[in-house]
Amino acid sequence: MNESTFAARLAETGAAIELELEIVLGAEPRPGESARPARLIAAMRYATLGGGKRLRPFLTVETARALGREDEGPRRAGAAIECVHAYSLIHDDLPAMDDDDLRRGRPTTHRAFGEATAILAGDALQALAFEILADPATDRNAEVRAALCAGLARAAGLAGMVGGQMLDLDAERSPAPLSVKEIERLQAMKTGALLRFSVEAGSMLAGAGAKASAALLAYGRATGAAFQIADDILDAESDDATLGKRARKDAGRNKATLVGALGVEGARRELARLVDEATAAVDAAGLGSAGDVLRATARFVATRKK
Amino acid sequence: MNESTFAARLAETGAAIELELEIVLGAEPRPGESARPARLIAAMRYATLGGGKRLRPFLTVETARALGREDEGPRRAGAAIECVHAYSLIHDDLPAMDDDDLRRGRPTTHRAFGEATAILAGDALQALAFEILADPATDRNAEVRAALCAGLARAAGLAGMVGGQMLDLDAERSPAPLSVKEIERLQAMKTGALLRFSVEAGSMLAGAGAKASAALLAYGRATGAAFQIADDILDAESDDATLGKRARKDAGRNKATLVGALGVEGARRELARLVDEATAAVDAAGLGSAGDVLRATARFVATRKK
Repeated sequence: MNESTFAARLAETGAAIELELEIVLGAEPRPGESARPARLIAAMRYATLGGGKRLRPFLTVETARALGREDEGPRRAGAAIECVHAYSLIHDDLPAMDDDDLRRGRPTTHRAFGEATAILAGDALQALAFEILADPATDRNAEVRAALCAGLARAAGLAGMVGGQMLDLDAERSPAPLSVKEIERLQAMKTGALLRFSVEAGSMLAGAGAKASAALLAYGRATGAAFQIADDILDAESDDATLGKRARKDAGRNKATLVGALGVEGARRELARLVDEATAAVDAAGLGSAGDVLRATARFVATRKK
Repeated sequence: MNESTFAARLAETGAAIELELEIVLGAEPRPGESARPARLIAAMRYATLGGGKRLRPFLTVETARALGREDEGPRRAGAAIECVHAYSLIHDDLPAMDDDDLRRGRPTTHRAFGEATAILAGDALQALAFEILADPATDRNAEVRAALCAGLARAAGLAGMVGGQMLDLDAERSPAPLSVKEIERLQAMKTGALLRFSVEAGSMLAGAGAKASAALLAYGRATGAAFQIADDILDAESDDATLGKRARKDAGRNKATLVGALGVEGARRELARLVDEATAAVDAAGLGSAGDVLRATARFVATRKK
């Protein structure tokens, strides 16, 4: 799959995901709901609908499609994962955390809506993610819905995203630099867990067999790690205007990155190795040409410009 | 059931819940977990194990017991709900929200651990709650697990707790006082939704029939509303040392309460009416003497001293 075919697919699936996010974040009152905190909904929509690559839901939708499932289920699960991603960005940007004013070229949520609303918007987005996954509209099989909830909870919580963010903050404040192994572990939690789960959710929704599931898990792990290294390289080499957020902040605040530990060239070699690992995992999943989009996604993750 | 029998039951069930919280917040590494953010775990434990009435898990455990189920399932679900309650207190106490320094007679979590850790501890506790509910150890039936996740998500999110907190903050900043109806609606979301779900979770776990479920839902609604009015009366009439948190803060910051709207005597009348409504609902559920603990709980909620 060449770059322009992939770009078209990314845009097409992205539009379907955008529509799904509009649905789950819709302003229509739900049955039994007594009052609508309008400002909170506005902040949730601002943070979630404000652009972004939609890489996580893309992985969910395309994994399920490669395995033969194309209905709204994977789009809904992807939207749920994107809600968690959006909430994590809101909270990470807060003054007490990374204290960022700019995200995707716009004021961060707390700059636009105030801190209290931003904290609550993040909290409500996390709850919404589980509401979506637990809804029969996502999958008729309750075993699948419960497994999706369990998987997201692990990927997002103490052992995953939030735990990784905590280790990252700890590392910033520590005088001793982390080892390459410690950085890899931290990143596997902070950004890797949710990316890995994005692929896993697609497998679960499509009822993948044990062999394909295991191979796709390896694909998710490698793609997640590649994403983070590419992000760190971009941060080291870009400027604010290109990224739409503050650039070179990692070096400025002692962030633990593989660019810092291995240098840019070492990080690039590791990135290339991970892309090879990811594409080999797609081969191992036995998807044949149905796996082309996933292979192209791993390459895209490594070569994207922002 | 007299007061001392009830007090003994509250203590006994409370101890079982405390043990369950110790288990779910345990410091043992879980399978597949690569690194443990020790400070984050310490903050989660500090916020959750730091005492409290455990009213929500008590309602879950005692509702299930009244319907004939006594195994670990309801204790686990109760622990999950308590994790959500604890997370909401952490976030509500933050400087950008209610800015409180004292909770249960101790420094609030952000005063003890710093703001960033407190925000993340709240986030991780929310995820943990869903992880517990989605785990087969809570219920072997995946339909029940998925329904528990859906119910908690609705009770905790935009249409429930978080939405109510947002309306509460909006009301503080608004010059116009809320009507009695608006205050009731706000409180039904902010504290009522999670209390109501605590009862509902017990019904679901015990497989209550349609009639008992509906009656217990009414019980949960009335008990939740009674709890909030009692809380507002306590706030208006106590001092910091008795409450273990800042007292009379409602009046000081224009909080929307029924005490403010109806006066203390009017609020007391409404409280008595709600307790009658709650006990009548237990009768309607057809539980007979098995409902005695639930009846006593409604009275306790209305007469507690802190």
